[in-house]
Amino acid sequence: MSKMKSWTAETIAIGSELLLGGRLDTNSLFIADQLAACGVELRYKTTVGDDLSDMVSVVKAALRRVRVVILTGGLGPTIDDVTREAVARATGRRLSRRKAALDGMTARLAEWGRTPTTSQFRQAMIPAGADILANPVGTAPGFSLVWKGAYLAALPGVPREMEPMVRDGLLPQLQAWMRTQKRLSASPMIRRVLHTSGVPESIVDQALVGLVPAGSTIQLGIFASPMEVMVSLTGPAGAEGAVTIEQMLRDAKARLGDIVYGEEEETMESVVGRLLNEQKLTLAVAESCTGGLIGHRLTQVPGSSTYVDRVAVTYSNRAKFEMLGVPVVVLDRHGAVSAEVAAAMARGIRERSSASVGLSVTGIAGPGGATERKPVGLVYVGLDGGPGEAMTREFRFHGGDRTVIKQRSSQAALDLLRRWLIKKGQE
Amino acid sequence: MSKMKSWTAETIAIGSELLLGGRLDTNSLFIADQLAACGVELRYKTTVGDDLSDMVSVVKAALRRVRVVILTGGLGPTIDDVTREAVARATGRRLSRRKAALDGMTARLAEWGRTPTTSQFRQAMIPAGADILANPVGTAPGFSLVWKGAYLAALPGVPREMEPMVRDGLLPQLQAWMRTQKRLSASPMIRRVLHTSGVPESIVDQALVGLVPAGSTIQLGIFASPMEVMVSLTGPAGAEGAVTIEQMLRDAKARLGDIVYGEEEETMESVVGRLLNEQKLTLAVAESCTGGLIGHRLTQVPGSSTYVDRVAVTYSNRAKFEMLGVPVVVLDRHGAVSAEVAAAMARGIRERSSASVGLSVTGIAGPGGATERKPVGLVYVGLDGGPGEAMTREFRFHGGDRTVIKQRSSQAALDLLRRWLIKKGQE
Repeated sequence: MSKMKSWTAETIAIGSELLLGGRLDTNSLFIADQLAACGVELRYKTTVGDDLSDMVSVVKAALRRVRVVILTGGLGPTIDDVTREAVARATGRRLSRRKAALDGMTARLAEWGRTPTTSQFRQAMIPAGADILANPVGTAPGFSLVWKGAYLAALPGVPREMEPMVRDGLLPQLQAWMRTQKRLSASPMIRRVLHTSGVPESIVDQALVGLVPAGSTIQLGIFASPMEVMVSLTGPAGAEGAVTIEQMLRDAKARLGDIVYGEEEETMESVVGRLLNEQKLTLAVAESCTGGLIGHRLTQVPGSSTYVDRVAVTYSNRAKFEMLGVPVVVLDRHGAVSAEVAAAMARGIRERSSASVGLSVTGIAGPGGATERKPVGLVYVGLDGGPGEAMTREFRFHGGDRTVIKQRSSQAALDLLRRWLIKKGQE
Repeated sequence: MSKMKSWTAETIAIGSELLLGGRLDTNSLFIADQLAACGVELRYKTTVGDDLSDMVSVVKAALRRVRVVILTGGLGPTIDDVTREAVARATGRRLSRRKAALDGMTARLAEWGRTPTTSQFRQAMIPAGADILANPVGTAPGFSLVWKGAYLAALPGVPREMEPMVRDGLLPQLQAWMRTQKRLSASPMIRRVLHTSGVPESIVDQALVGLVPAGSTIQLGIFASPMEVMVSLTGPAGAEGAVTIEQMLRDAKARLGDIVYGEEEETMESVVGRLLNEQKLTLAVAESCTGGLIGHRLTQVPGSSTYVDRVAVTYSNRAKFEMLGVPVVVLDRHGAVSAEVAAAMARGIRERSSASVGLSVTGIAGPGGATERKPVGLVYVGLDGGPGEAMTREFRFHGGDRTVIKQRSSQAALDLLRRWLIKKGQE
């Protein structure tokens, strides 16, 4: 994989709670997107606690390896907030109380009918030579400075304070500075994404061998997760690069065929929803082992009430009989986890609702409930679109826990529906 | 906050998708907890893309600043997977194909009726002198080595593969090695966690003011997410420290009262499941705006089929009438999002099933569907446990998107059930 000469960046998230907690770091994602649009590539993300010497070592390491360093967090009023001090030490500058920072903070507090507390005065201590980045929402100002050819900015960790400061303060300033740096030219990057379902990573990998020629400035990424294998192409947004990425994307789609279910931000549930809407069809679902996950996913899509009629989660055999009319003799003869019951569930939910199509899942999510002939991961999916339009599929999912088997089962069911809808739309 | 002398660690998450995507990094949280129990403190978390030279620089920096380095990801079969190569370069060792690694992989694939592909042979390339960490679930083996006084391990990024490898392979090995290192003594840390629901972070924060005295070696953490506010106490596991943590935990529980719904790994759905099991009660759920999320959450708990009878997701008014018997006149007069309909849904699902208790949710998850009198975030929860045991609650959730409102609605419904079950159990 070749690497473009480009501006490089590192984000540093500060706060011991980020080391201990499992929170989603949406800040670095936002910053990565904003920087990419300016031609700056995020190469490292670091998280460090509130320990001053740890923080100094992290800031120093970042200044050595990238040209743009963005710190978030640690700008509050408590003694745990030592980002200002860490930047001062890492860059050998002194901290001093800055009038502009104090004025901004005082004005903000006055709007709320308050005056600064003693500890809040700490927030106006800024490294010498740094510019203040005004905080339009909260009290803690940010700041930025240039040190040995690198740009460094420190911002609050709260997204609703950080985001406008990046857009309105940091980016214009960074881009103006980048134009003064002759040695590097910034090339904005774009990224295109395909989502595939139903085959393992190794198959996708094999299908795409040779897609990106050696020496290309475009990077191919293949990322597997329980519900999909995602393919990405990343490269320069300039005229030539963009054309090449679009060509490669077409080539990739041709190679992968109908396992590609969506592009960019699309999800399986949004694609199925679009197809149902286009064909003015409605859907009813009968779930057993997925326990409501298919309904949950379908209804994550805004506007899904136009095509989702109802979902029946029939965990007990009695519920399968009462809610779906699955004959007791079928349940007894074939067992609840069988193609016959999946077919009866799909037909039952369609017939008992006003929906155009019924979709069903029954299987063994584990860890209990398996028998020698019916192992954990055995799943049947049924689809019933009316007379002559019924089908079932058997799946055997290996090596996943209950959560993964539920996810993969829901994806398999929605993918069967997607394929049926595409075929129906072509008739 | 005081800092104990202790073993220090860094996690390195590998994969360009982690830089670009906003995925929750649960791996480092799991590793932090496991290491803390051995007296190793996580001090840095780093994320780096699939670029070999970036990865080498990150591994070298980590080996300089901590004693334990845990890498996750980049062990797959594709050419993007360069963790093996990066560790080899950072430590100056050669890669060679290892028979034990190959045998483990071949055996795993044989269970699934497959043989290794050419690219999968790459997974058996291990740095010289490294020990193999067997992967009991997937095909990619991990490995560990000691380099200049530091312990380094490389593990798959998939949690269900990584977690057993940490527990069964890495930790016993690491602890054995730590005992041979005389210069540092390990002081095991423990962490205790409480989960609360129904109040904002600021209320929890206020309730716990003064819980941990100044100068204590114990750290209090308060972490807010859409469904809960989590409280943690972290400190030395030694006799005195552990006693203090348990005392503080009791104090915290007394201060927080019934907003605490669980401890440690407990979830709202597992707590509700335990209470239902203890009282030998069964549950039927009628969902509207949550779209199946309550069913999905309840059935995430292994063994939930003993108490979950059925779930009806009645997105359309017609489904509310047909599946639950909600009178058309009630729907017309009060609208689908009303206390009256929530009550009728809970009663309907209980009466039409054999379940002991019915739970219902109806609300406006947005972004569409709101009116002046019924804004996005207005949600009604109903519970019906039979004659004289029926109730509804109104919630107004502010400032969240569709996903967050679904999450908070499901949590509010399950919490109402939890409180009712606790009261019933005391009768």
